[in-house]
Amino acid sequence: MSLRLRHLTTLENLPRATIERLLDRAMSMRDACAHGTRKLDLLTGRTVLNLFFEPSTRTRTSFELAARRLGADVINFDIGFSSTSKGEELYDTLHTLEAMHLDAIVVRHKVSGTPEELVRHAMSGVSVINAGDGNRAHPTQGLLDVLTIRQHRPNFEDLSVVICGDVKHSRVARSDVHALKALGARDIRLCGPAALMPDEDELPSCQRFTNFDEAIKGVDAVIMLRLQKERMIATDLPDEQAYFEHFGLDNRRLALAGKGALVMHPGPINRGIEIASEVADGPQSKILEQVGNGVFVRMAVLGEMLAR
Amino acid sequence: MSLRLRHLTTLENLPRATIERLLDRAMSMRDACAHGTRKLDLLTGRTVLNLFFEPSTRTRTSFELAARRLGADVINFDIGFSSTSKGEELYDTLHTLEAMHLDAIVVRHKVSGTPEELVRHAMSGVSVINAGDGNRAHPTQGLLDVLTIRQHRPNFEDLSVVICGDVKHSRVARSDVHALKALGARDIRLCGPAALMPDEDELPSCQRFTNFDEAIKGVDAVIMLRLQKERMIATDLPDEQAYFEHFGLDNRRLALAGKGALVMHPGPINRGIEIASEVADGPQSKILEQVGNGVFVRMAVLGEMLAR
Amino acid sequence: MSLRLRHLTTLENLPRATIERLLDRAMSMRDACAHGTRKLDLLTGRTVLNLFFEPSTRTRTSFELAARRLGADVINFDIGFSSTSKGEELYDTLHTLEAMHLDAIVVRHKVSGTPEELVRHAMSGVSVINAGDGNRAHPTQGLLDVLTIRQHRPNFEDLSVVICGDVKHSRVARSDVHALKALGARDIRLCGPAALMPDEDELPSCQRFTNFDEAIKGVDAVIMLRLQKERMIATDLPDEQAYFEHFGLDNRRLALAGKGALVMHPGPINRGIEIASEVADGPQSKILEQVGNGVFVRMAVLGEMLAR
Repeated sequence: MSLRLRHLTTLENLPRATIERLLDRAMSMRDACAHGTRKLDLLTGRTVLNLFFEPSTRTRTSFELAARRLGADVINFDIGFSSTSKGEELYDTLHTLEAMHLDAIVVRHKVSGTPEELVRHAMSGVSVINAGDGNRAHPTQGLLDVLTIRQHRPNFEDLSVVICGDVKHSRVARSDVHALKALGARDIRLCGPAALMPDEDELPSCQRFTNFDEAIKGVDAVIMLRLQKERMIATDLPDEQAYFEHFGLDNRRLALAGKGALVMHPGPINRGIEIASEVADGPQSKILEQVGNGVFVRMAVLGEMLAR
Repeated sequence: MSLRLRHLTTLENLPRATIERLLDRAMSMRDACAHGTRKLDLLTGRTVLNLFFEPSTRTRTSFELAARRLGADVINFDIGFSSTSKGEELYDTLHTLEAMHLDAIVVRHKVSGTPEELVRHAMSGVSVINAGDGNRAHPTQGLLDVLTIRQHRPNFEDLSVVICGDVKHSRVARSDVHALKALGARDIRLCGPAALMPDEDELPSCQRFTNFDEAIKGVDAVIMLRLQKERMIATDLPDEQAYFEHFGLDNRRLALAGKGALVMHPGPINRGIEIASEVADGPQSKILEQVGNGVFVRMAVLGEMLAR
Repeated sequence: MSLRLRHLTTLENLPRATIERLLDRAMSMRDACAHGTRKLDLLTGRTVLNLFFEPSTRTRTSFELAARRLGADVINFDIGFSSTSKGEELYDTLHTLEAMHLDAIVVRHKVSGTPEELVRHAMSGVSVINAGDGNRAHPTQGLLDVLTIRQHRPNFEDLSVVICGDVKHSRVARSDVHALKALGARDIRLCGPAALMPDEDELPSCQRFTNFDEAIKGVDAVIMLRLQKERMIATDLPDEQAYFEHFGLDNRRLALAGKGALVMHPGPINRGIEIASEVADGPQSKILEQVGNGVFVRMAVLGEMLAR
């Protein structure tokens, strides 16, 4: 039996049993939401702080709904509008909020490692959940991605997945790889322009490609990453049409993947840059399923940490 | 028996029975709020999204309170602060939010017809409620206005009402006329400067006036509209004092109306421009009753659509 | 038996019995929160409006948590973002919100006396709670300060307290003095640069000092005030290091106080200006206890006013 999680800052080195327990919990949350007409009250009397240093209405709303559906109170503390943004002042603000009896802090920050900083400074009894730090980790996204895959392809030992785009700067890619590896995925492929691929010594267990037609061959799932347009400049494909031609996903290219391969994207999508509308809105797209699973995964994580 | 409403984008062509059922429901909500010491839990587990493209603290707060008093969760998504404001990106954001299991979207937008656009794009199972689109419709305002009138003058077949001000640009005026007509109001009068009157072929069942002293004669209710000061320029009364003299409501002019005529205004009022303080704060003013009824009407609409 | 409070705008002239009842209630709230796994439902169905004209995430969050933990709904109305900021328009907005059936208004405003203005204009049945007005009063801060002291030094007739810093502009200092006097504190000392001391005829029952080493001698509690840096200019110590040398609290100076003297601060603290980190983070610091007590005191005040 694995221990109950206290914090969730990364999926790296998380035991397979813990990940599977969280996915199972997420499925229970889905069932409870589908059947019940009443809110769950697992977290009644608990308080969750949303501490977002980067704007993200989607992820913040997902966490907020997850917490409220379990009966918790949610405080949205938009640090951008406050005077405190770093160092001692930030920790004084954090301790002040904790002294009002917080149970969990959901944090997003552009600097990698901030969640661990908070874990070091957080008071005993307060859980920290990483909602994305720099290009390092986005663990609930990793969990919701493997949950979505598991619903359609339950046998990970047979699974082949390609992750395509700006892998170098993607916290989603890293958390996906960590979760896929933990669950025993057979074949994990990374694909992107050379300038946007991670360093050679990072993610050593993955196959690397710079030709998407080759990378996609026969895979069970294609995870497309959002391209920050300003990063396209750094590649040798500095315009949208050329980028799309080489690394975009359209129906022609999707036909090279395995039959009925899952199409996934963490959103928000750039239509016509990394993904064609015919694919994003097509029958193999699981993009909106991912969003729905996101709420259940966050309910599972909050429930795991905060239920009495 | 009329069908349960799925969406509410306009009152135009809504059957009288549906409107009356909503008004009756609003009265039940009022009674439940007055007697009960506990919140109603009709919408426990339901989630309502407030999607306001125009700022409106008053209407948004009214919808938020209505939803919360029925036990629903409310997400305020201020689109002005997000990157998505139109077209495909907007619909991707909408679908993302829907995939988190929304039950209703309350939308305000300056472009007429946006609520119907959302109805076309919304997923099955999500209700759309118009909180005001362009100069076209504001159906919950129309409902709360006829509810306020019904509480004091229940016989609509005897009713004479004047709506005065910038009728041309007023979604309130249009929804009021639709609701009053559906309920069989005998005599609906529109009054305003020629430049601010609607086209001749619009609202054909109404009498038209440009002389307020004549228009107000003997009416049971006077609905004053808020004047956007920048629109005064377009009239031949381009200063506040001249406008007030011709189209403002003071005690002298109110005395020309029927005995105890109701004074109404959707708010916020411009004191000294369209309405004198002696009238706004006087014994015939129902302006704050309208606000209170607004919460009950919105509870009724949400209950009609979302109760299981 | 003292009467139930209707409004709370200042602690000045509040009877000792009322203050003690509120402190006792706050302790009950603390116990209920500590033992129960469920939210209290004392205020279910009640609505509290947070009306903040000055930004204050900390105090607003404290009131919001207090209200929600008692089951109330909370509306945050950020007046800074609305068009209404003063005079008639403000009262029209206030009445509009009241007509949606508010039970209490929590107000912060930079102009002293605004809460009393609201009391004069508020509808019957709506309670007004001052969350800080100008330099005049911050009654819930005064209550949470005496609660914190009472937990460690229950005999006020033996108590000696010094309040140090910009007393002249501090609403916290005034509410602290009022609460301490009402509870019979033996010795209340005020200390600060001459330019930042209140007028001679104000707070006549307090001893006055401009030498902190003398003022702190033997006291049971030291309440440090936050220094607005722009006000330091007005003193004869116009730089941070010189100010800290004369009026800052470090371990050397704290050793002059009574054994184990309590160190308090309303926050947010300016480290190295009015207080050294060694003291703020040291064993005698009660600063975070104050924050925790703040929620309980606000629960007590809301419960006193709004419970049916």
